[in-house]
Amino acid sequence: MKIVAAKKILKANDQLANENRAAFSGRQVFCINLVGSPGSGKTTLLEALFAQWGQRCAPAVIEGDIAGQVDAQRMEQIGVPVVQINTDGMCHLDASMIAAAAQNLELTGVTMLWIENVGNLVCTAGYDLGEHLRIVALSVPEGDDKIIKYPAIFQRSDALVLTKIDLLPHLNFRTAKARADMQRLAPEARIFEVSARTGQGLPELATWLVERRAAAAPSRS
Amino acid sequence: MKIVAAKKILKANDQLANENRAAFSGRQVFCINLVGSPGSGKTTLLEALFAQWGQRCAPAVIEGDIAGQVDAQRMEQIGVPVVQINTDGMCHLDASMIAAAAQNLELTGVTMLWIENVGNLVCTAGYDLGEHLRIVALSVPEGDDKIIKYPAIFQRSDALVLTKIDLLPHLNFRTAKARADMQRLAPEARIFEVSARTGQGLPELATWLVERRAAAAPSRS
Repeated sequence: MKIVAAKKILKANDQLANENRAAFSGRQVFCINLVGSPGSGKTTLLEALFAQWGQRCAPAVIEGDIAGQVDAQRMEQIGVPVVQINTDGMCHLDASMIAAAAQNLELTGVTMLWIENVGNLVCTAGYDLGEHLRIVALSVPEGDDKIIKYPAIFQRSDALVLTKIDLLPHLNFRTAKARADMQRLAPEARIFEVSARTGQGLPELATWLVERRAAAAPSRS
Repeated sequence: MKIVAAKKILKANDQLANENRAAFSGRQVFCINLVGSPGSGKTTLLEALFAQWGQRCAPAVIEGDIAGQVDAQRMEQIGVPVVQINTDGMCHLDASMIAAAAQNLELTGVTMLWIENVGNLVCTAGYDLGEHLRIVALSVPEGDDKIIKYPAIFQRSDALVLTKIDLLPHLNFRTAKARADMQRLAPEARIFEVSARTGQGLPELATWLVERRAAAAPSRS
């Protein structure tokens, strides 16, 4: 595991994000920016997806956190190449941090690069990192009003993954309301309902991601 | 309910926060800044505390949200005076927003002013609003690693309230670990374990808050 300190680079974020995306595409690496609240289950979702794919996927991960290496250690434990970015108080990742982190990752043979953003439903919305796909995780214990209260991040995501759905029997979460709110904000977005604990919904999400990667990089599929 | 747009005021935040605090103290209003992730149960905790106190407490609330009035509507439904601040994308409240919002609240007779901050474990840490007490809510479904991953907000809080503890039987949350992490970061802070649904732990928190208010404004207690 490598730890990269966040550095401010003067290039405009969007320009740098486009350069990142072009570099990833050129290496046939499909890049996904995973956002969500603290504790929405992002790392656990990655662990479950990687187990689901097994040898059929060669992932690498960039972990963004204010402090600590908890998530990167979890990736190392399952043998996934990982770089930890510590933002030292900053509330989101930006494209310059990703460019620096990617230089510390061996991407040869990697098919999917996951970026696990800082847990934050607000500040992450405004920063393109150079990903091909943005996924927002919303854990059902957070409540079904979050899409209305934090609209930007949902509007700008390609998929909503409702996580921890094994807890639904113990909550008042209205899945139909969450779906309707998301469809209003982002009509093109896909919606998945997943429990990493029971495995429910994982195959559908895993299949869709592989299809999206194949569509983005047809020569590798 | 009134809705106040966030305005940038040039006065330094800390100076304005001190002015807010002095104004609240002068009116014998005890002010609490409630922070936590999106979906950590802040609004539900307020509803439960207000029900617990009944007529023994005269609260008012300032609700901070990126968008929408969901939380303010919940306060109106239980008859609590409320002002909604819509930050229009900003990720935290600041002291100028509180000063503006307080002008739209009738504080005569109010004993406790609650500020429910934007759901954000990062950006809210750096902004003193002029409160007398800062409380951080951490819902147990978020996981027991959050204190290590988002240290600033926990370090700068006077109390940690673990919420939704009725869900503990369905989770791997280690309460002892969370308590130990919090005690390391903030040795003076109190720690409460609460379920708004079952009422467990609410009386202890409610009693402590009344004591803190009495200590801050002895003439009213």
